Amino acid sequence: MKFESIRFQNNQLILIDQRKLPQVTEYFTCTNYKEVSFAIEDMVVRGAPAIGSAAAYGVALAAIDNPDYETFLLRCQEIKNSRPTAVNLMWAVERMIQTIDYWDIKAFEKLLKEADLIFYEDIETNKKMAAYGDSIIKANDVILTHCNTGALATVAYGTALGVIRQAHYSGKNIHVFADETRPRLQGAKLTAWELMIEGIPSTLIADSVAATLIRDGKIDVILVGADRIAANGDTANKIGTFMLSVLAKVYQVPFYIVAPFSTIDFETDTGSGIEIEERDASELSMIGGVQIAPEGMKIFNPAFDVTPFDNITGIITEKGIVYPPLKENLNRLR
Amino acid sequence: MKFESIRFQNNQLILIDQRKLPQVTEYFTCTNYKEVSFAIEDMVVRGAPAIGSAAAYGVALAAIDNPDYETFLLRCQEIKNSRPTAVNLMWAVERMIQTIDYWDIKAFEKLLKEADLIFYEDIETNKKMAAYGDSIIKANDVILTHCNTGALATVAYGTALGVIRQAHYSGKNIHVFADETRPRLQGAKLTAWELMIEGIPSTLIADSVAATLIRDGKIDVILVGADRIAANGDTANKIGTFMLSVLAKVYQVPFYIVAPFSTIDFETDTGSGIEIEERDASELSMIGGVQIAPEGMKIFNPAFDVTPFDNITGIITEKGIVYPPLKENLNRLR
Repeated sequence: MKFESIRFQNNQLILIDQRKLPQVTEYFTCTNYKEVSFAIEDMVVRGAPAIGSAAAYGVALAAIDNPDYETFLLRCQEIKNSRPTAVNLMWAVERMIQTIDYWDIKAFEKLLKEADLIFYEDIETNKKMAAYGDSIIKANDVILTHCNTGALATVAYGTALGVIRQAHYSGKNIHVFADETRPRLQGAKLTAWELMIEGIPSTLIADSVAATLIRDGKIDVILVGADRIAANGDTANKIGTFMLSVLAKVYQVPFYIVAPFSTIDFETDTGSGIEIEERDASELSMIGGVQIAPEGMKIFNPAFDVTPFDNITGIITEKGIVYPPLKENLNRLR
Repeated sequence: MKFESIRFQNNQLILIDQRKLPQVTEYFTCTNYKEVSFAIEDMVVRGAPAIGSAAAYGVALAAIDNPDYETFLLRCQEIKNSRPTAVNLMWAVERMIQTIDYWDIKAFEKLLKEADLIFYEDIETNKKMAAYGDSIIKANDVILTHCNTGALATVAYGTALGVIRQAHYSGKNIHVFADETRPRLQGAKLTAWELMIEGIPSTLIADSVAATLIRDGKIDVILVGADRIAANGDTANKIGTFMLSVLAKVYQVPFYIVAPFSTIDFETDTGSGIEIEERDASELSMIGGVQIAPEGMKIFNPAFDVTPFDNITGIITEKGIVYPPLKENLNRLR
């Protein structure tokens, strides 16, 4: 890997500042849990697995000054509230809390060990997903992807982009079409940046161009990530994913989700139970400080949409590729 | 109307500068045909009917210095080349050329009269389309639209947005969802501006949000314009239109094209015969002077896509609403 998106050293969480890419490669340093919460909320760090890892270090930092247990739990809740849709965030914070069986002066040390474990597990998980995913990629495949699911979205390697990396490393002569991914343009800013750094042949498109490419048979497979997967396979992911899934179904293009098992929320039966975060209107009305829409225009800006399970060809996890019936087969691997 | 998008006076074509809206309301003055060509190419003026009217005045200005007929025709060709997809541009230039039965000192005067005729016909056409279109809008309808098809895209009133205006004037209590329309953001910049000026209740969304609204039954009808309609009803319109048509078909939402009869190109049998303009990569990689995508990233930026005739509920023209079979019924009204 040619860059590190997350590193913890000297009791500081150092994050590559994804708000400033691709123009500037800068690092954002968190010395306490509040700065970690801010980094998640303001999307210094984004992508479900990366958020999970950052949150875990945030929970450790929440114990660094030896607060009482109630204060610690309140701080954990604050971290949880920074992004409502990301199940990895909840999962990581919960796992960190449960690590502690009694609250003493050694809490910080124990929590840090667990956060490191989450960090290294994520790298391992991504490598496994990439290996499983690589098995469905054929030589010369043209792959469409949405948003950023790369090393920037995880601790390293990536989910959907991890599979793409692996297929490229395997010498399969792939080509990638990357959706720019409005409103925050993670595709244009982050995925394009990662693809260029890796030297993977690729083309950037507006989100609405994908439909024509899919119809015209120019896409062999679609790979996207997930922010949360319900027990039945309904998948919340970046706004625009659902649209791709409908086109994929109509024009019979394989549509895969690539996500670690921790993304699956077995407590939520279907997609209708997933809360969809609505983000600030300025994400749509302004770009890079430039006003686009007229002042005062009403804006609806959901960050995610839900792709129904029956639009999904398969879910590529670190435990293997899960095919329909998704509900039964996800449950079997639980 | 609270503004004029096109006016010809004192031998000058005065255009509202659509590159600068919504922040600044400024006018761009063309004193010769070259400036008109530039205004079309650089999208000072855009929208098929507005381009047609501007081009007609451009043809008149191409004769203002009494050139020989060959020079005049070369100038007309230059105007034609400014936007390859817009059939109204070809249509207007051809009609202007055919106005002249012999070439003499009075050519400019005759051409100007014809350009005025095209100007006033467009207003009349839009009012008729609006009246036909209004008949399919019910009280409290929620209407989705794409790109800008308003008074800015025509001489006045608009095509799809003309129908929306009429329905609003009729007191039908409509609500409009406007796609921002990447890459040039005509929805955010122009449609939102027109909707706000008119006081029409409306919400701006990213293009990929439309899919979820359509699925969730939140859209009663979709109205879009057209840049070129083939003889069989296949319709070239702003990139993103095709995607909406697929969603509309899958979720059974009525999907109408609103376009003057001059948009129909009976010489082109099907959509596959329509040349799709590919525009500069910078439309995607930069917004308002701000670099978004990394330097050197390959970009594919088609300006239009083709919606197949069988995704279209009907075509609203000034001669009436044309329902399937579109090929036969368009031909009948020819």
